[in-house]
Amino acid sequence: MGHVTDVGDVTGPGSGSPLGLHRVLAPAGVLPQAAWRLDTSPRLWPDEVRVRVERLNLDAASFRQLREATGGAAADMRAEVCRIVAERGKMQNPVTGSGGMLTGVVEEAGPGSPLGLTPGDRIATLVSLSLTPLVITDGLAGWDGRSEQVPCQGHAILFGRSIATVLPADLPGPLALAVLDVCGAPALTSRVVGRAAAGSGLAGSGPAGPVAPVVAVLGAAGKSGSLSAAAARRAGAGRVIGVVPTEAEAATLRAAGLADEVVTADARDPVALAAAVHGAGGPATVTVVCVDVPGCEGGAVLATADGGTVIFFSMATSFTAAALGAEGAAADVTMLIGNGYVPGHAPLALDLVRSEPGVRGIFEVRVSEGAPGGKAET
Amino acid sequence: MGHVTDVGDVTGPGSGSPLGLHRVLAPAGVLPQAAWRLDTSPRLWPDEVRVRVERLNLDAASFRQLREATGGAAADMRAEVCRIVAERGKMQNPVTGSGGMLTGVVEEAGPGSPLGLTPGDRIATLVSLSLTPLVITDGLAGWDGRSEQVPCQGHAILFGRSIATVLPADLPGPLALAVLDVCGAPALTSRVVGRAAAGSGLAGSGPAGPVAPVVAVLGAAGKSGSLSAAAARRAGAGRVIGVVPTEAEAATLRAAGLADEVVTADARDPVALAAAVHGAGGPATVTVVCVDVPGCEGGAVLATADGGTVIFFSMATSFTAAALGAEGAAADVTMLIGNGYVPGHAPLALDLVRSEPGVRGIFEVRVSEGAPGGKAET
Repeated sequence: MGHVTDVGDVTGPGSGSPLGLHRVLAPAGVLPQAAWRLDTSPRLWPDEVRVRVERLNLDAASFRQLREATGGAAADMRAEVCRIVAERGKMQNPVTGSGGMLTGVVEEAGPGSPLGLTPGDRIATLVSLSLTPLVITDGLAGWDGRSEQVPCQGHAILFGRSIATVLPADLPGPLALAVLDVCGAPALTSRVVGRAAAGSGLAGSGPAGPVAPVVAVLGAAGKSGSLSAAAARRAGAGRVIGVVPTEAEAATLRAAGLADEVVTADARDPVALAAAVHGAGGPATVTVVCVDVPGCEGGAVLATADGGTVIFFSMATSFTAAALGAEGAAADVTMLIGNGYVPGHAPLALDLVRSEPGVRGIFEVRVSEGAPGGKAET
Repeated sequence: MGHVTDVGDVTGPGSGSPLGLHRVLAPAGVLPQAAWRLDTSPRLWPDEVRVRVERLNLDAASFRQLREATGGAAADMRAEVCRIVAERGKMQNPVTGSGGMLTGVVEEAGPGSPLGLTPGDRIATLVSLSLTPLVITDGLAGWDGRSEQVPCQGHAILFGRSIATVLPADLPGPLALAVLDVCGAPALTSRVVGRAAAGSGLAGSGPAGPVAPVVAVLGAAGKSGSLSAAAARRAGAGRVIGVVPTEAEAATLRAAGLADEVVTADARDPVALAAAVHGAGGPATVTVVCVDVPGCEGGAVLATADGGTVIFFSMATSFTAAALGAEGAAADVTMLIGNGYVPGHAPLALDLVRSEPGVRGIFEVRVSEGAPGGKAET
């Protein structure tokens, strides 16, 4: 998908908008992601696609919040998700602001849709549920509330720019969904580490020179973390330091072979985290935050070398805490908001899970277990 | 100031910590910026400095929130700031999370302080009030509640790493304070635009080549905005597009001569903002967000070219809205959290206000007016 290059591309040709502005009911004039309520009508605008939903994949921060707010009982979890979707016309957690993604089967594609989809295609959306018109028709009867993956019947609408990908035939659906949900993380990690390895750009503010970068991944035994660790190594990291919160996760990560050093630390404790990373060969040239609990900003900054880069993928990141935390430590680090869209992100992530047994193993356990109860990971 | 390079540097040599960890009362183990409450005792640890406070400069987002929450009456504003500082031991707005900075006179410098300050020095802090132990002793009796600059008596504590700068003798104190408060913005803008102009690094994801970048500054008639516009031009911008919310600000910006194109648009309206920037010679290679109202993330992304960079300086930025907004638009843009610390930031900003009459004029009006009532700027 190309990006906006002229105004016509923003507002769309006459009817509808590739960004879905015509589906915004309130407040007027905002983008669908920022909207309170969307129009979920099944009738398509010319460039839209309607999908028969099969499964939602709630993002980790949202799932955690829902579980904590409701106490985790299945009936309460179902009721809360149904209530949000009925009220807003999309699954956007009003507390975390985040959504997730979905899989389903294309029912109808408008004549002007640029997505290249055909009725019958089994697809995953690569844009957030937080901007996707959604109707749930089965009350989520098939969901036990224990997994981020939610069996669901209903329909969803894709806009002209709502990128989606046909699910690969060689991977189980739930596994592919879990991989695609976090595919922006390894793609951006790969870009940043690759530039640092080449001695240019994003990851360093000084004359870094082509030295193999040290990469710390917080939450490296999780989904986005394991993919990011594998992507970092492939992009030229000289040393990958995997940080995990528990000895059990440390054992998992060691067995997976994705990190050169595995250390156990609470990412919310800045001094402990910095000491752990420094002791394992840090500070890091690039620190990748894949932990979905609040309060990891300061530790990530302290674990990173002067001139290095922190990439925040966690939806629990506080903009203010990151900005003021770095300033307060007089830390000259580049801090990136993890953009879920990087060209080629889906094929890269699927390739990593196919070719790296350590990544695949972690995903298979995570998917079969359902949600990681109480663990800090994305 | 150097950045953390080993663990001793984090935890400090025996007593105290250069990051001020020993002043954190609750919750245990977090950095002072993330703490709920700090120890404000005037007795110094060996590497600390005590300052007799003369003036606070509340950050724009915090001031706006306080004014809206209290209705703006002076007595209520005074009471609320005093209440926060008494409760937390620092001026950190509990809603915005942000602080500001202060000026004062050095009373005592511990024997181990690395800051190079001497009793009697008139200084400004370059770290946030959100991590600075503070006691107010005069009830803010001299503050009329109408300006972000707050006459104040009391004391504050600087840690080993709490950078500060001696106020320049050639600039009025309130002017210097206003400049130093936002000095991170022009410094980071200069770095990013300079790299884009050189065809490398931060500002582009593609083979940009050495083309003079187009820079859009949202809120260009404000303090951080005018400095950023001047810094962008000096760093090699081919075209500076200044975006302002009103015709009055447009006239101010035109008179200041800091932008090649001046356009009026509401930065919270993504379609209008993108159309305005595109119509003025955009999309932007680099977009600098200096508007202190929420909801500008989507428009900033849409105003930026594929492969470009958005720098968010506004403390009203939502991490989630930025991350999901870019993903939802399939926009391959690099999004930076504006770090208030960049080496050399204070001298650069002071030099800009000395050498650019357009910048100085804007600051003199802003400082004499007090806060910009109802205007969207930082």
